[in-house]
Order: sequence, then structure tokens, then C-alpha cells
Amino acid sequence: MSHPESGLTHFDDQGRAHMVDVSDKPFTARIAVARGAVKMSAETLALITEGRAKKGDVLGVARLAGIMAAKKTADLIPLCHPLPITKVALDLTVDPTLPGIVVEATVKTGGQTGVEMEALTAVSVACLTIYDMVKAVEKSMSIEGIHLILKDGGKSGRYETKL
Amino acid sequence: MSHPESGLTHFDDQGRAHMVDVSDKPFTARIAVARGAVKMSAETLALITEGRAKKGDVLGVARLAGIMAAKKTADLIPLCHPLPITKVALDLTVDPTLPGIVVEATVKTGGQTGVEMEALTAVSVACLTIYDMVKAVEKSMSIEGIHLILKDGGKSGRYETKL
Amino acid sequence: MSHPESGLTHFDDQGRAHMVDVSDKPFTARIAVARGAVKMSAETLALITEGRAKKGDVLGVARLAGIMAAKKTADLIPLCHPLPITKVALDLTVDPTLPGIVVEATVKTGGQTGVEMEALTAVSVACLTIYDMVKAVEKSMSIEGIHLILKDGGKSGRYETKL
Amino acid sequence: MSHPESGLTHFDDQGRAHMVDVSDKPFTARIAVARGAVKMSAETLALITEGRAKKGDVLGVARLAGIMAAKKTADLIPLCHPLPITKVALDLTVDPTLPGIVVEATVKTGGQTGVEMEALTAVSVACLTIYDMVKAVEKSMSIEGIHLILKDGGKSGRYETKL
Amino acid sequence: MSHPESGLTHFDDQGRAHMVDVSDKPFTARIAVARGAVKMSAETLALITEGRAKKGDVLGVARLAGIMAAKKTADLIPLCHPLPITKVALDLTVDPTLPGIVVEATVKTGGQTGVEMEALTAVSVACLTIYDMVKAVEKSMSIEGIHLILKDGGKSGRYETKL
Amino acid sequence: MSHPESGLTHFDDQGRAHMVDVSDKPFTARIAVARGAVKMSAETLALITEGRAKKGDVLGVARLAGIMAAKKTADLIPLCHPLPITKVALDLTVDPTLPGIVVEATVKTGGQTGVEMEALTAVSVACLTIYDMVKAVEKSMSIEGIHLILKDGGKSGRYETKL
Repeated sequence: MSHPESGLTHFDDQGRAHMVDVSDKPFTARIAVARGAVKMSAETLALITEGRAKKGDVLGVARLAGIMAAKKTADLIPLCHPLPITKVALDLTVDPTLPGIVVEATVKTGGQTGVEMEALTAVSVACLTIYDMVKAVEKSMSIEGIHLILKDGGKSGRYETKL
Repeated sequence: MSHPESGLTHFDDQGRAHMVDVSDKPFTARIAVARGAVKMSAETLALITEGRAKKGDVLGVARLAGIMAAKKTADLIPLCHPLPITKVALDLTVDPTLPGIVVEATVKTGGQTGVEMEALTAVSVACLTIYDMVKAVEKSMSIEGIHLILKDGGKSGRYETKL
Repeated sequence: MSHPESGLTHFDDQGRAHMVDVSDKPFTARIAVARGAVKMSAETLALITEGRAKKGDVLGVARLAGIMAAKKTADLIPLCHPLPITKVALDLTVDPTLPGIVVEATVKTGGQTGVEMEALTAVSVACLTIYDMVKAVEKSMSIEGIHLILKDGGKSGRYETKL
Repeated sequence: MSHPESGLTHFDDQGRAHMVDVSDKPFTARIAVARGAVKMSAETLALITEGRAKKGDVLGVARLAGIMAAKKTADLIPLCHPLPITKVALDLTVDPTLPGIVVEATVKTGGQTGVEMEALTAVSVACLTIYDMVKAVEKSMSIEGIHLILKDGGKSGRYETKL
Repeated sequence: MSHPESGLTHFDDQGRAHMVDVSDKPFTARIAVARGAVKMSAETLALITEGRAKKGDVLGVARLAGIMAAKKTADLIPLCHPLPITKVALDLTVDPTLPGIVVEATVKTGGQTGVEMEALTAVSVACLTIYDMVKAVEKSMSIEGIHLILKDGGKSGRYETKL
Repeated sequence: MSHPESGLTHFDDQGRAHMVDVSDKPFTARIAVARGAVKMSAETLALITEGRAKKGDVLGVARLAGIMAAKKTADLIPLCHPLPITKVALDLTVDPTLPGIVVEATVKTGGQTGVEMEALTAVSVACLTIYDMVKAVEKSMSIEGIHLILKDGGKSGRYETKL
């Protein structure tokens, strides 16, 4: 029912979107790590880093938003399978060379398909949340370079970005 | 209750996150336009453009995912106000120079706060959906340059990206 | 931006799905009434009617499911606008001539578009809930004749089914 | 705790609604297929079939809505168990003899209860979405004959509608 | 349609649950404040208060969970109307005399019904989140005294708890 | 990655919130029972108990709200894992000595973490729903004593409240 010659597995052989049948795939330990960044001015970044101590924890709010978003992935991405997520962690680090915040999400499951979309969704929503909290100060921020950096488990094996 | 000296309005004067009080703001016509892109190899892009005709409409699925995501913004972004969205449109165009797909979202409301986050969320989820549908072919795609290009309505007035 | 010659307003002039712009439509009192039925054997219907008293209130559960579903309409139907629903009521009546249960939903709003979809969704989910609660006894039930019987308010005026 | 003499398993022996205990049921491969239709005038149907090519893909939008709705079943039907869906496919075919659109949904899981409600919910929401997209042209459409046509897997065995 | 002699407005005169018709009520500024507490041992409380600085901000996570829950009230409470919330703030204070954490939520809207349920839901979910984050240390915590302390706006006027 | 010296497992060793990794925990049968109560005046309680027969089933609506809320736990509590719930039952009893309604929820799963939060969430939302349905009559009701009374399954073993 998939579409081998085109490689677009989310469509059947008549080009109709469907949720791929994973019924016969084994339950295996899977992990995915994704990364992205919010780019901003140095002044805006300074506001966030100072804020952690006493004016408000932007990164703490974004981290939580990312974790909660990972659980909503199958509700947001039309053809994603619902998966029993077993771990979500977000790492947000200040990068003065961007300048901006780098967001990295790690997601694990013991399910029948990978958790790449969960990791990418967690990064995206954490970045959007940073934008939301700081937009009163700078509207020209941009979200950059959201990509998968690691995926392991399942038949297709390990994928890792060359750095 | 906002935090004037820092500009981080999502925190009160003790640094605690809150949903800003907009009770006294007038209901005005508001619009926001956001843009972003999914970057991929020329081969992958060819697969998508050919697919529209007979192998599966990747852009059609992504457009719908973006429209539905705009309606979930207040559920995803912790401190966003729920807003009565009155229009959502997504424009997805093939850009061979990237190569990739450029996603633009336009959102309108007649509410008390702006719809920037709705437009940015629509773009993000449409990009994630493209990634999901094509990832079997190329895992090294990246989501780039999600940013606000226009915002109008409300007290803070018009904002437009310099192109 | 709508598509006048075809009448399919949910697509723009290039055939792309969008959420129609209702920004300039006035806020008016609107009402919609929809109806449908679950058809079953006389024996199954007897089980439900007897159950109300002491074995379990199938209709009470279905009524509540329908009310809650009306609130989820914009989340279920891709191009529906979120609307501030001001009233939802479901009327479930036993019809021995079907035999089965007739479900009628009335929904009101003070918004910019009609609540037909909210009423039809409430009826559909109430019917599905009846099916769910009785399926252990009869799997051959069917949901029949879900249709709009009244719509009023808004520019297009009153619509009423001829009985 | 179930209610054997009445057969209404969703109520305990005092007639109180509950989510049935399936803890001790085995995980088995399960499938369900459901069908339904949207009946309309021949003119309206012609608009949809012509539209696929250039005016807007009504069936493509409805298919996606049905797939996404299958994932929301446990959120819509009060006493449904959440299930790890492993496949959802919708088949929408034009039937000039109705005249209208026939919707068929196939859902699979590897869980402890059946996916009948997921298949029926997918059909219902796809039908509602067709109604939504075409209602500007014809309000007198009706949704007809939503029923289960196949169910297999689990202790109760195979069920198939006699055609 | 309400039930004047019993005062249970959520049921019609035949005892059927419905979402009350508020179509004709004016849009007015409304506020509600609710309070509750999580009671625990002094040792557990010490862990939370020390944690704020370096081991993890339990109260920050609970505050955010409460804010987000306020937006889900109409999805959780079957007969609640969806409301355009214009402000949510949560105040969590350490009370060594309980010992425990006191949670207070303030919610505002400009809608047709009050926001008591939004404030009470925010308090409840913030308390549940505290429980969740500390349960590995103490399972015997309890959530106590969730009640409305202030309500204003709307026809029924001001309500305030006597302290 | 957990935080052994503090016992706050929902934070890593740098105090950042995360969803704990349960990937390597076995799937075991788990049960949790929680309890709480809504305290009200004897007059209000009389209204509810009389209502069951003919004026409206407050307890039936609250029971259903509690069952549905158990399924939303991972969506409400930020760091909760999504779990395949296999049973939810709510028991609501009239207690004239309070006076009020005592709510008890029993939840089961076959997953990798416990269902305490699901049981506590079910109790909380059932109590909130009682409040909502009766608040037109008495605003001074309070929700009291929500606590865990039993937990079994998993490595940490059986926990039971001393009565």
C-alpha cells in the first residue's frame, strides 16, 4: 500500500494520504534528538539571561512548553501515529555568537515507529514560546535551523548528522 | 503588574509568569503574516512537485495542518490568549533556489491581542508536516527562517519586515 | 478570495483550502438545529428504554457526549471557525417505529458565522456514543439521516427543512 | 462489575457508567472497517468531482479530517479506551446513483479492545467535513447509513455485514 | 428552560443536562479568584522551598500548569461555556503553618458568563501538578479547601468569602 | 539523570524539569485509587439527592466528567507520561455527615508508570463538575481532602493510606 517508486510512504499507490500501517513492526527502543535556535539581537539575549535570576525564567517556560508539545505531536501532524513517549528532555543554551538560544530535544519511546517528529515538534514549540515571551521587545527574531541530529532504533537503523 | 523596566511583559514584577491582562484593550481588526521554509535537496523537492499531480499532495496536507494548528495556538503556547480567529490562509510555494518549500501564513482576528503567534505556529506546523511526509526520503532537511513579516492593528501599530 | 463561480467558498481561486475570512461579518444571534437517528432492533431499543430506570442511562451519557462535542467542532472540522457557543441542548427520543433513537441538537452563538456544523457534530457524536454503549449487544446498528433542520441569523437568512 | 443480564457492559451492576476493565485482555491484532455516505443533489456532486482537478480537493480535505478524527476517538466518546492506532486509511468514492460520496474507513491496532469506534468516528467526521465544505451550495445534504462492515481480532471474533 | 424551583440551572424542566442559554446576557467585565492548598510534611515543604534556588522550580511548573488548565476549562467541565479569557495569574505561597503550598488563581474575561470554574480549575491543576512533582518523596499529601473567594461582574453581582 | 539527593525526580541534576525516562521499566499491572469530597450545606445536598430522580442527575454528569478527565491527565499535568488506561470507575456517594458528596476514582493500566495522577485528576474534575452544576445555589462549597488511598504495581510496591 505504500508508494515504493516515489518514496513518499504517506501516500498510497493512488496518491491518497493515509496513516501508514505499522501493525507488523516490532516494538523497539527508539530515540531521536532534534535541534534548532531562536536568533535575536544581543540586547534581547541579555534580557533573557539576566531575567533567569530575578525577572522571569523565559527558558524554564519554553522548556515546559516543548515537553508538553511532544505529547501533542500526533494531534498536530496529520499522519503521525500516537506513540507511548517514555522520556522527553529539553536543553536550552545561550549562544552569544548567534546571538540567541539553542534548543535541543531528546525523546524516547518503546513503540513501533520513530520519535523524530516528537523531537522536532518539541524544539519548534519551545522556539515559538521563546518568541512569544520576548516579542514585546524584539519582533525581528527568527527561528532557524530546526533539524534532526540523531535517530536510533527501528529497522532503518542509526542516523546521525555529520557535524 | 507587567514588568516595564525589563520589557518582558509575560512576567510580573516578581518574575512570575502570567497571562497578561488584556481586559481593557479594545477589540480591533488585527492581521499577522509569517513566513518560513523547509530546505531540502533538489531531488527531494522534485519528488514533491511531481507528486502533486499523481503521487500525493504533500503541500495540500501541510496547508491543512497549518490551518488547524493556528486554532491550537493558545493550547500550545503557555501564555497566549485564546482568540476568535476570523481567517487563516497558507501559501506554499516551491523555491528551486533554496531548494525547498516556502510557507507563508496569514491570520486575522477581531480580538484584543495580536495574532503573530497564530501565524508563526501555522508556519511551524506546516513545515513540520512537510518534514514528516518526506522524511523517509531525506532526513537532513531543515526548517529555516521562521519570522514575522507583517503585523497590523492594535495599539502598537504596524510592523513590517524590511525586505 | 472566495470562489464565486463554483460556490465552494472553502477554496480560493487557485483551488487551495483556506479558512474563509469572516472578519467583516457582523456579530449576530444565530441558531442551528440538526437531527439524526440510530437505527437498531426492537430488542436492543427495549434494553435502552428499560435501562434508563435502573440498568444505566445510555441517553444521558450520549447527551453529554453531544454537548461536549459541539465545543470541539472547530478542532474536528478543518476549516471551521472557532465560535463562542452560547447554548447547546440535545433532545434524544425513543422512536419505536424506526426502531431506534432520534437525536436532535440545538446550538446558538452570537458570532460571525453559523453554528450548523456545531449542531451536526453534536448529533453525530451523540449517535456514535449510543452505538458505543450498545455495540456489545448489536453490531448491525446504523446511524441514519443526519441533516440540518433549521438555521437562522446571519446574511443568508432562515433555512428550514420542509417536513 | 459488568452487567451480564442486560448486556450493557458500559454500566456496572448499579447502572453507573464506567470505562470497562480490559486490563486482563490480551494484546491482539485488530481491524475494523466502517462505511457511510453523504447524499446530495447531482449538481452538487458534479461540483465536487470537477473541483478535484482545479477548484479544490473536497475529498482530500475530508480524508485528512477523518484520519485525524480517528486519533481523537477516546477524547470524543466518553467510555472509549485510548488505543495505539497502527493504521488509518479512508477511501472516498463518488457514487452517481446516490447521488453522493461514499466514505469507508479502515483502522488497525494491536491493543486490548477493538477499533470499531475509531473507524465509525473517522467516517462520521469525514462526512461532516464534506458537508461543511459544500454547505454554501446545498444545505439539504444528509449523512446516511454509517455502520460497521467488518471487525476482526479479539475474543468476540470476526463480524462481517451481510451485503 | 431552566429549572427555577430547584435552582439547578444546568438541567431543563425534564431533568436533562444542557448548556444554559446565555445568548441574551450582556458582555461584561468579570473576575473570579479561587484558592486551595496542598498539605504535606514539613520535610517535603523544605525540599520544595530549597529546590527553587538550585534543584528545580516546583512552583514555577505548577503555576504554568494552572495557567494552561484555565484555558482548558470548557473542555474539562461538561456544561461550561467556552469563554475568551483575558487574564490568568497564579500566586503560590509557602505556608509553614499548614505546612504546605497555598495556591490562588485570578481569572478575568469580558464574556457572558462568569469565570469561577476557570479559577477553580487553575487552582486544582496547579495543586495536582505539585502533587505529581513531589509524590516520589511523599504520597500522603492532600489537596485541601479549594473554594471561590471572589467573584464580580454580571447580573448576580459581587460575591466574596467572609474571612 | 534524576536527582537522588533531593528526591525530586522530575528535575535533572541541574534543576531543569524533564519527563523522567521510564524506557527501561517493565510493563506491569498497576492500580491507583484516590478520594476527595465536595462539602456543601445540607440544603444543597438535599437538592442533589432529590434531583437524581427527576430534576437532573448531578452525580451522573460528574462521574462522566471524571472518567473523561482521567484520559486527559497527560495533557494537563506537564511532566506526566501518556499511559494506556485500561479501566476507570468513579464512585460518588452522598455523605450527610459532611454534608456533601464523596468521590472515589479507581484507575488501572498495564504501563510503565503508575496511575496515581489519573485517579487524582478524575476525582478533582468530578468535584469541579459538581461545583459547576450546583454553584447557582451555593457558592461557598469547597473541595476537600483529595488524596491517594491506594497504589499498587510497579517497583515501589503497594501504598495504602492508613484509615
